[in-house]
Parts: sequence; structure tokens; C-alpha cells
Amino acid sequence: MTVRTAVAGASGYAGGELLRLLAGHPEVEVGALTGNSNAGQRFGALQPHLVPFADRVLEETSADVLRGHDVVFLALPHGQSAAVAEQLGDGVLVIDCGADFRLSDAADWERFYGTPHAGTWPYGLPELPGARAALRGSKRVAVPGCFPTAVSLALVPAYAAGLAEPEAVIVAATGTSGAGKALKPHLLGSEVMGSMSPYGVGGVHRHTPEMVQNLSAAAGRRVSVSFTPTLAPMSRGILATCSAKAAPGTTAEQLRACYEKAYQDEPFVTLLPEGQWPATASVQGSNAVHLQVAHDADADRLIVVGAVDNLTKGTAGGAVQSMNIALGMDEGLGLSTIGVAP
Amino acid sequence: MTVRTAVAGASGYAGGELLRLLAGHPEVEVGALTGNSNAGQRFGALQPHLVPFADRVLEETSADVLRGHDVVFLALPHGQSAAVAEQLGDGVLVIDCGADFRLSDAADWERFYGTPHAGTWPYGLPELPGARAALRGSKRVAVPGCFPTAVSLALVPAYAAGLAEPEAVIVAATGTSGAGKALKPHLLGSEVMGSMSPYGVGGVHRHTPEMVQNLSAAAGRRVSVSFTPTLAPMSRGILATCSAKAAPGTTAEQLRACYEKAYQDEPFVTLLPEGQWPATASVQGSNAVHLQVAHDADADRLIVVGAVDNLTKGTAGGAVQSMNIALGMDEGLGLSTIGVAP
Amino acid sequence: MTVRTAVAGASGYAGGELLRLLAGHPEVEVGALTGNSNAGQRFGALQPHLVPFADRVLEETSADVLRGHDVVFLALPHGQSAAVAEQLGDGVLVIDCGADFRLSDAADWERFYGTPHAGTWPYGLPELPGARAALRGSKRVAVPGCFPTAVSLALVPAYAAGLAEPEAVIVAATGTSGAGKALKPHLLGSEVMGSMSPYGVGGVHRHTPEMVQNLSAAAGRRVSVSFTPTLAPMSRGILATCSAKAAPGTTAEQLRACYEKAYQDEPFVTLLPEGQWPATASVQGSNAVHLQVAHDADADRLIVVGAVDNLTKGTAGGAVQSMNIALGMDEGLGLSTIGVAP
Amino acid sequence: MTVRTAVAGASGYAGGELLRLLAGHPEVEVGALTGNSNAGQRFGALQPHLVPFADRVLEETSADVLRGHDVVFLALPHGQSAAVAEQLGDGVLVIDCGADFRLSDAADWERFYGTPHAGTWPYGLPELPGARAALRGSKRVAVPGCFPTAVSLALVPAYAAGLAEPEAVIVAATGTSGAGKALKPHLLGSEVMGSMSPYGVGGVHRHTPEMVQNLSAAAGRRVSVSFTPTLAPMSRGILATCSAKAAPGTTAEQLRACYEKAYQDEPFVTLLPEGQWPATASVQGSNAVHLQVAHDADADRLIVVGAVDNLTKGTAGGAVQSMNIALGMDEGLGLSTIGVAP
Repeated sequence: MTVRTAVAGASGYAGGELLRLLAGHPEVEVGALTGNSNAGQRFGALQPHLVPFADRVLEETSADVLRGHDVVFLALPHGQSAAVAEQLGDGVLVIDCGADFRLSDAADWERFYGTPHAGTWPYGLPELPGARAALRGSKRVAVPGCFPTAVSLALVPAYAAGLAEPEAVIVAATGTSGAGKALKPHLLGSEVMGSMSPYGVGGVHRHTPEMVQNLSAAAGRRVSVSFTPTLAPMSRGILATCSAKAAPGTTAEQLRACYEKAYQDEPFVTLLPEGQWPATASVQGSNAVHLQVAHDADADRLIVVGAVDNLTKGTAGGAVQSMNIALGMDEGLGLSTIGVAP
Repeated sequence: MTVRTAVAGASGYAGGELLRLLAGHPEVEVGALTGNSNAGQRFGALQPHLVPFADRVLEETSADVLRGHDVVFLALPHGQSAAVAEQLGDGVLVIDCGADFRLSDAADWERFYGTPHAGTWPYGLPELPGARAALRGSKRVAVPGCFPTAVSLALVPAYAAGLAEPEAVIVAATGTSGAGKALKPHLLGSEVMGSMSPYGVGGVHRHTPEMVQNLSAAAGRRVSVSFTPTLAPMSRGILATCSAKAAPGTTAEQLRACYEKAYQDEPFVTLLPEGQWPATASVQGSNAVHLQVAHDADADRLIVVGAVDNLTKGTAGGAVQSMNIALGMDEGLGLSTIGVAP
Repeated sequence: MTVRTAVAGASGYAGGELLRLLAGHPEVEVGALTGNSNAGQRFGALQPHLVPFADRVLEETSADVLRGHDVVFLALPHGQSAAVAEQLGDGVLVIDCGADFRLSDAADWERFYGTPHAGTWPYGLPELPGARAALRGSKRVAVPGCFPTAVSLALVPAYAAGLAEPEAVIVAATGTSGAGKALKPHLLGSEVMGSMSPYGVGGVHRHTPEMVQNLSAAAGRRVSVSFTPTLAPMSRGILATCSAKAAPGTTAEQLRACYEKAYQDEPFVTLLPEGQWPATASVQGSNAVHLQVAHDADADRLIVVGAVDNLTKGTAGGAVQSMNIALGMDEGLGLSTIGVAP
Repeated sequence: MTVRTAVAGASGYAGGELLRLLAGHPEVEVGALTGNSNAGQRFGALQPHLVPFADRVLEETSADVLRGHDVVFLALPHGQSAAVAEQLGDGVLVIDCGADFRLSDAADWERFYGTPHAGTWPYGLPELPGARAALRGSKRVAVPGCFPTAVSLALVPAYAAGLAEPEAVIVAATGTSGAGKALKPHLLGSEVMGSMSPYGVGGVHRHTPEMVQNLSAAAGRRVSVSFTPTLAPMSRGILATCSAKAAPGTTAEQLRACYEKAYQDEPFVTLLPEGQWPATASVQGSNAVHLQVAHDADADRLIVVGAVDNLTKGTAGGAVQSMNIALGMDEGLGLSTIGVAP
């Protein structure tokens, strides 16, 4: 089986990571690479690490260019995916790495994104309860946000098992690639290196309602989320420190058993042995998720820490994993659990 | 007035930072520099950035060597300060950068440190209510831990004003210098760069009871603390993200007003203008504390983020500031609010 | 064809990178993993990024354990390879990532390494003239040093074509993984981050005679090498800035044509388009070599800058590439030209 | 004596560093802060680390605003300084951190900068032979480029003593702040972290003729310079690796003696003890220069490695040092030899 793929938004970080993974996928052929501001440029000048594509020329993003592929990955600014998908029609598997189809609640969407809600597509986080079934055979996939990927995998088992009270507190550090290639002063190397800083504090980050949606679905009741993202001096990686008050009577043993059970058959999620904590370097460039749990008896809180690569499992890896499922291929094709460390 | 000072533990990071500050202090003369494993070595080989001391030779730490100074700074491993201080007697101002005399509760001490409690000294965080008065004229100072410095300054005003519920959740990223110069595999540059990882998770970090102590004192009732430290790929700096459920009826305006009032006369603490968030680079090498507050209406939580340099305000700067107060000098001598950025 | 491999020294950085590559090699099966100081430990505690091997236990390095594999990779301290290889016998392909068999001149070896010369094995840098032929069918391979890999690929074409005078000046920055996992104070993250420093200055670095050997072979006369390595604040990557006086009459056009021709059929070496310079991030985790050349008309010097990943093309990737050739497999199996960027 | 100063270009990195130093200068008062694109903004939003100036408002750069100060520092884009200086007149000490008045050869200027030559001012590198005398009482100072500062201090003694052949080869790594705050894709944190890359290769970097000028003046004959700058993953610091063929008969002892003598009375230059090599972290934020020398007997070359902070000694520190000399104050006022390490 050879799957012909196209990447719209190929000059950005998500697009580049998609190409890195697709180039190593045994059943995939890479067709059109598109962009807008950089259309017409030699691809090697834009993404010098993607040597096999260096002599390609970036095309303008349009349905005409994207048509004729089996799978089209969209790594576009928010708000552009619906129109492209509609033009491509139902015969093409469209995998949207943007936010447009992640939220099921239109009011949440409009409050956080300020535009009309485009709809909801099957959610590309196969490890969530019911997600794999929804992805199989689907022609549309909404890839989760990078933070919601880490946070949902960290907290859903506890909520699904009733071990945590419905108020989650999350502080997550991200590498700067999460902010994309936009030229903003605070993203300059001189500003970022040697510095940690928060942003989007106080419940305003757009990934917050997505976390609320996933955790609430698991808990069967509304879970509130206090989410603070911080920018760390590294290119890649998310370390999500997640906690919640323990449900009455929850023990450390129960907690550990719950996560062992939840992820025992998941190929990309590792609950580390007791005493070993996740580090983002260990999952760099991989589709792996590393988790560890603890119960703080004094504060009576559960702490779950998760590490993912924001560009791989947090975006492009999740997209490829979802494609594999949607097309009925082996879920792990083209993906690795091995990080590029040190 | 010329104050003659000695530094015990001068070859470590805290000791080095003390010397950097003392060298720029207009009323201070630096006498003995001591260490143990490195005694006898040329100081320039140990701390090449401290050029004015390069030709000194590190002496063995002993009361004999330390005696004869007006002020002795101790940057020693935990458990060694009491004996040295006793030998030096009451005539010498002893400023302990270690943990030995920070906790007032002997049971807390014994639980977290595993040795008998040595006692309690005036606490070198002048911005806390009542702390300046206790420091004035004192011959003993316990310099706070670096995390408790950041966290206490971030949360004490809210607790003192009754704006927060007594369960604080704190995630704080620290630069690697906080772990000292010990040769441990996870502190190698190859492991640290490009990586974030947590440690001491689940209520076991030794700075936890110190935070509980300070926040409880402010609140007038026991405050529980869930504290997760993370190691960030930078040499210096702490970014503490602190939150707590808002007390009923607390508004964003109240919160901001509370912090404005608490710190309006504090020379080293800046509540940033609305919309601007702290970054550790801005306080690097300085005694400054940058704070920002938010109220997350959805989660009904207060979020306070604080940035300090762990070696300066978090250790050596706090020590010098306390010395200035103890000796009746201008509190800001030898200290700066200007960070070395970018 | 399934090739059964073992890795001696699997807990170090070179060993870990070998395993990362071997795990993705379609014709390879990974057998014994050995080490010494860490023998008996769960492998996941030593190399947490290598998830598929996490439950393995590190064995003691010995011929008994290593025997029974088709290929044995040695990532051992200098001086240990000869004995192991002899015990394994001629039926096993032994690929030594150490220095023991790289130098053909016994006097050079003894001067720089201080021990008796063990011999010379076919040199695992297939891009050098004649190297591929020597590797085909060989049962022994000496993997080049990481710096000589970058420097030889950067300068050999110019010397082979007679475009450069026989005095090369090389300054090369390396990531800290090049220094291994040894616990040395100057390798601590706190020391490395935000800092550049040289080491082994003045002709004393052990990779110098290896460069002299390779460049002299290409030039057909002795080439002297002034080599200064510097330690850069990054985990991986070598950027080698190489220059030499131009041979009389050499032009920029000649220079460029020379490199185009030299590498036009090399799968892992890319001469970048004019105006684009190598960056180590572009080759991170890949077996790619990026080169660019210039002629400084004022100083009348050729400048060639090369970027490699010290652990991949500079060690483990070169080893796998050599294995592929030695065993008659496709040279690129298990290797990629795509870097993990950003 | 109170010196009233103004800084034009205060929102950039050089301007910020000037303010950091001037704020700690005991004889200086800081008057106008000007900029152009950011004029009208609260200064704290632009340079949050400069707390004492946070409530200032950036003014438009104009002679009217700058007039009325004793000293005006210009940190402007190239080409703008001459007009401002002329309007300010001869009564004001004008210290130009830009390139406009550094080169004495008009043809060099025009070739490298493409505009008419504005003239030549006394050169603000006091450690060069004759430079102090020219600075004393001067009303104009041209602050050297950051690379020429490091390189000239590294190589001038050898050339002045006739120990080196007139062809210097220099590779210098710089922190990203050397490239300023301009929003360019290759300066994004995601691109810079974990990566080394060269730029301005082949004799085209604008600092090259300035090095040629300084080294030639020392040698008494034209010295050619092959200069390759590289961008390192750090915010600050220059590590310059400089070499040249040794003059016939030069010995390691002569070389060391030459540098000891050249810098024995220089307050900011340290020739490190034998065996110890410079690291940029050791000079971070300081006006110190660390040097080490070696003679490579095989290649018969002198190697001199120098470390400076590009923003301090390389720009703002050199400017303040020059101001002190020009005004007849103690040369070291407001400056330190102590780096902010680790």
C-alpha cells in the first residue's frame, strides 16, 4: 500500500516535523509541499535539515495543488482548514494540525478563538477512551493541541477512575518551537536562552478549553482547569506538571495501579518505574510519552508529570499515528519510541 | 565603617556569589576564604570569574581561620553550621546560607533532614512581616532557601490579606546552579541542555516545610503546600508559578491592590505592570524579585508568578541584604535591582 | 538477512546512539548490551530514551557475552579493544568506536596515547578515497574520531585536488556529548550553559594525528594541522571551520567545482547551495554532513565549514554505515539524512 | 564630579548594557534615553531588567533631546552618528558605539560599509599602544567592534613583539546578542539553541578591516586576517581563537613572557596561569578579558584564545572605560572584573 500525502504549511515547524516523519514512513510517498509567504522558494533554503526535499519548490496552498493525494495534512493558521477541507471533498483523508475542529462546544470555541465554530472532527489522541474507534476509517482528524496531548494523557486515567477531585492545576513548560516561526521579540534566542517565563496566564490560553473538554469527558462531570504555560530555554519538549486533590481515600498504590492498567497496552505511553521521573530530552524527536505519578500525602494531592515532544507526539507524530489508524495500517508505522538523547 | 567578612564554603556556587557581591560592597573587606576538599588550591583555579581573588589560596574551614572577622558567611553542607557558630561566639555576625536554622518546628526539621534540630535564627527574608525588626542588631541570620524566597514573596501578601484558601500549589523551575557543584550524572551539561525534568516530587523536597511555615504564619492558620520543583536548562534563576483557590468574593482588583500595597516600599520587589510577566533573565545576577498576579475566573484561582535569581536574591543577595540590616547599614548596599540581560 | 549485533559500552553516549540507530535498522537484531561499572542495572535507568531496551539488564563486558553475534560494536575506553577482538576471532565483524586502530603510524600513536600501538584496521569513513573498497568484506573496522570525520570530509577534496597549501588551521566547536558521561566539573550544566571554552589547545588533542594522517594521504605529502577544539553549550554537533592557504592560482569557481564533483554521488554529504552555511542543528541525530566553501581573496585562503552530529555521523552513524558496507548491504540502511530540527 | 549622560539607542542590547553600567557608576547621572521605533513607550516594557529606569519614557533621538548632557553615548545603526555628533558640537563628549569612526582608511570603509567615510575618532581600546594618550581629554571616542576588541587584545602583543608572521587566522564564536534585537528568522531561539553556525565567511565580515588595521599598526606592516565568526547558543560572550605562524625562532617561553609583560599593568586583562583556558562564562557581564597562549610546535603556530563579553568589554564596558579616561576619572569606575558565573 502506498499512501500519497501532501503537507500544507510545510515551511513551519509542524510542517517540517510532518515531513521528517513521513520521509521515514514505509508506506508513504510525499507529494505536494505548500506554503504561502514562502511559495516559490527552494525548500532547502527554508528547512535545511530536510535534505531529501531540498530541491523541491514550495507551492502555493490551494485545493488544486492539494487535490490528488490520499492524505492531506494541514498545518495552517487557525481558521483556514474548513475551506480547504470542503474543497478537497470526502474522498481525501484530511488531518488538521490546527485547532479548528478540536472543540465540540461552539461557545468555548467562540470565546477563545473569536470566530464562528467550524465543527468537530474525530480527535487524534488514540489513547483516549473511544478515540481509536472514532478514528478508524474516518476521513477527517483533528490533531490535539500539544499541551492538551500531554495533559490529557497525564490526567485522564485518574479522572476516569474517579481518583481525583474535579479541579486540576497544571503548569507546563514548553520549548520555543511551540510558538512557531513567527518573528516576535520575546522569541529571539537572546531573550529565550537562560530564561524561563510564563505566558497566557490566568485561564486565557486557548488550549485550556480543550483540556477541560478531555478531562470532563473522562470524569463524567465538569473538571475545571487552571493552566499556566511557561516558555523554557529549549527548542522542543513539553513537561506538564499536573495535580489535583485526591478523591477521598485514594492511595498511592491505587494511583499507580490505575496508570499501569490504563497504559499497559499503549505502544507509545510509558509509566516509568517508581523513582524515575520524566525528562523531555528522553522523548525528543519521538512519539513517546513518559509519565510518572505520586501522591503527596501532606497536601493530599495527586501529581502526574508527563513529558512529550511538542512537535512529535504533540503534533506531527500524533497526526501520523492517527493517519495510520484511520487508514487501517499498523499504528506505529513511521514512528519511534526512542528519543534523540542526549 | 569597614566590615571584615569571611566566607566558609567559598569554592561553591553560593560562596562564589557571596564573593561577587561582597567585592562590590562599599563597606566590606573580604578576609578568609575557606573550603574543605579544595583547601590549599589557588582560588583562581576554582572560581575563575572572581578575578580579584584569583591569587588567594583557599584555607581549611575552621573556627580559627574564621575568627577575627566581623561577619562570617557559612555556605556549608547542612548540619555543619551550629558547631562553627558556637565556636565563633556571640560577638560575630554569623549568616548561615544553609538550612540548619530556618525551621522553627523541630519535628518538621527532623522529618525532612533526619538529624536533630539545631535551633532557629532570625530569618533573612526582610520583606516578610516582622522580619526586618528581628534582623536588626541580630548576631545570627538564617538565610532562606531559594525556592521559599520566591514562593513566600509570591504568596505571603495574598495569605496575609485573607485572599487565598489554605492549599497552595506551586511548580517552580530552577537553574542548575541550585543543585550546586556536586558531580552527579543528571547535572551534566549533556543531560541538562534541551531538557526539563522534575525532582523531589510529591511533598518530599526539603524546602516544602519552610514554605508551609512562612505561608502559615502569614495566613494565621496552617497552609498546605503542594510543591514540585523542576530543573530547567539554564544556570541561574527560579520561576515560581504559585496558585491557590481564591477566598470567596476575591476579585482581580483586590488581588492587584493587595500586592501593590504589600510591596510599594520594598526596594527589591517589583510588581510588574498589568500584562507584563516575569522572566528569570530580567533578574539574573540581581537582588530583584519580579512578580505578577492574575485571577482565573473560570477556575476561581489566584495565580502569582515570581522570578528571582536563586544565587542572588535566593541566597547570597538575601544574605548581604540581611547583613546590611543586621549591622544597621543601608539595606541596598552592594546590591542591585538590575539584571544582567540579555 | 538478519544481522545479530551486540554493543559493548552500551551505557555511554556512543553506545546509546548505536542502539538508537540499530533499533531502526531493518536487517538488525540487537543482542547483548554490556558495560562495566553499571553491569547488572536495568537499562531503562541508564538510558531512559531507549524505551524498547528499557527492561534489558546490562551485562558485564566479556568475550563470552559478546560471542555469538554477527557484529560486535565496541564503545570502550581506549586500549581495551584489541583483547576483546582477538578473543572474538575472525568470524565476527568487530567495529571499534574507540581510537585503538585508527592510526597507521605507531610513533604517532605512542606519542599521543602513551601505550603500545595495537595495529591498524580499515578506516570507517567511506567517503575517503579508497575507503569503501577496504571496508567491503572486512571483519574489522576502526570508526574515525568525531573531529577527524568532520575535518577530513571538509578538507580532503581540496588537498586531493591540489588546491590548498599543506598547513591547515582548524577550529571546531563540539557539543558536550563528545566528552562522554564522565563526571568532570567543567562538564556540569551550570558550567557549560552560556559558555564557550577551548581545550586541548596547541597541538595536543589526540584527534590531531588522525587529521594529519587523512589530509596527508589526500595531499600526497605531509600536511600540518593546527587544531583547536572548543566546547559549545549544546549537547550534540560539531561545527568545523577549516582553512588553508590557497594553492597558487586557485579560484572560488575551482574550489566549488572540486567539492561538487567530490561529493556528487555521496549519499550523506551535501554541499550546500552558495550563500547557505551549515548549522549543526540541521544534522542533529542524522548521518548527514553539510559543507560549504569559500575563497577569501584578501587573505588568499580557502575556508571550508562542515557540520556533523558527533554522535551520529561522527560515531555511531559512521559505524553503522561501515557495517552496512562491510556486510554488503545497502549503505544507507538504518540511517537518515534528515536532522531533528529545530 | 557628577557627569550627566544620555544614551541614544537605549532600547537595544548595547544601549541596555550601557544603562546597566552607568546605573552603577558612582559619578554618573543618567539623563535622556532615546530611540526611534519605540519612542513614547514606557522603558520598563522594553528593558524589564533595568528596574531603576522602568518608569522612564523613551524619547525620540534628536540633538535637541541629547543636548545638555556632558556625555552622549550613541548606540545607533551605522551611518547616523556623524550628523548627531556635529549638531551636539565640540563641548560634548560623544562616544559612538557604532562603526562610523573606527576605520582610518576611507577605502576600507567604503568597501565594507558602502557609504562615504565619516572620519576617524580616537579609538576606545585603551589597552592598545598609544590609545590611552589619544583618549585623554578627547571629546570623541569610537568604541571598537566586539570582535576586534577580543582579537586585537589577543594578537597585538605578539605582533608588536615580532613573534608572529603577518597572516592571522581567526575563528570567533559569539553569543546572539551580538546580532542585536533585529527580528530575523535565524536568530529565533528555536533556531539558535542547540546549534552552531558560521556567517560572514570568506573575508566579508565588517569587523575584518578593523582587525587588519589594529594588527597591522602593531606589526608595523600589513597583516592579513582570515576571520570566521560563528553564532553560538548563548546570549553573551565572544571566544576568539586566534593563530598565526610563529616568527622564526619564537619559543613558548618568549610568547608567554611577551603577554605577561604586555598586560601586567592592565586592570582588565588577565593572562591566565598556564594550563587554564578562558571561558566566556567567566567574563559574563564584566569588563574583563581572559587570555591564554600556546605554541604548537608541530604546526609552528602561536595560538591565542581570548574571552570577552561582547556587550560589556566588547561594547558598553569599553565605552565606559573610555569615558572614564577621556574625562580624567579613575579608569575602572563603574566597571568590574568579576563575571556573573555560573
